[in-house]
Amino acid sequence: MSVRDAVLFANEAFYRAFADRDLKAMDAVWSTRFDVACLHPGWQPLFGRAVVMESWSNILGNPQSPKIRPREPHVQLLGDTAIVVCYEEIDGSFLLASNVYVHEGQIWKMVLHQGGATAGAPAPEEAPERPRRVN
Amino acid sequence: MSVRDAVLFANEAFYRAFADRDLKAMDAVWSTRFDVACLHPGWQPLFGRAVVMESWSNILGNPQSPKIRPREPHVQLLGDTAIVVCYEEIDGSFLLASNVYVHEGQIWKMVLHQGGATAGAPAPEEAPERPRRVN
Repeated sequence: MSVRDAVLFANEAFYRAFADRDLKAMDAVWSTRFDVACLHPGWQPLFGRAVVMESWSNILGNPQSPKIRPREPHVQLLGDTAIVVCYEEIDGSFLLASNVYVHEGQIWKMVLHQGGATAGAPAPEEAPERPRRVN
Repeated sequence: MSVRDAVLFANEAFYRAFADRDLKAMDAVWSTRFDVACLHPGWQPLFGRAVVMESWSNILGNPQSPKIRPREPHVQLLGDTAIVVCYEEIDGSFLLASNVYVHEGQIWKMVLHQGGATAGAPAPEEAPERPRRVN
């Protein structure tokens, strides 16, 4: 797996834990070795693992938490750190996020998430090709 | 100068270039060795140095561009990368930003800026102490 693919895998794991309301998986996403910060859209900033995980416990414990998925991830590789900027699709609307990961052991762990409003949107997804009818 | 102070110095330089509408100084803030991204509040994401600097040329060329200053910077040190999360004070209102820097040569250069809305605000600044009147 390339470094870029490994970073994208970590980013997918973050959004899968979010969409699945899986607090244990969310806990595994975040770094245990470095200071972490989380800037939920519109909130005050949260610093430190305990405070950040408490916020996720509240968000993921809410059955109304959004079904979110990442769109058009853009990766910046910076040695042992990597940034993924992506759209977040929520019920057909879009936010924009920066996610920063550090190489920790064999995998990439999150140290920063910031989500916020955007006037942009990803390109429409291509519809799956229809099977062509022969004759 | 400690690593933390050097990162804060880079963060101050970014906001000074912004407040002073100094495009040359802003150009010097951003990395020339790594891919860069800029997420202005509410905009679509901007990727790559040419596009990012064009946005700053437009913003700083506008005499109505805001008098901005950073408040309560929080530093995360990640080896050759560092994150500064801070409030941005603009005419008594506040945004929240993540700024990511890489150690490039002897100084720290910006590779990511994201600004967005926040319900939070920094603690009030202490008023300068009044000289006590010795009666």
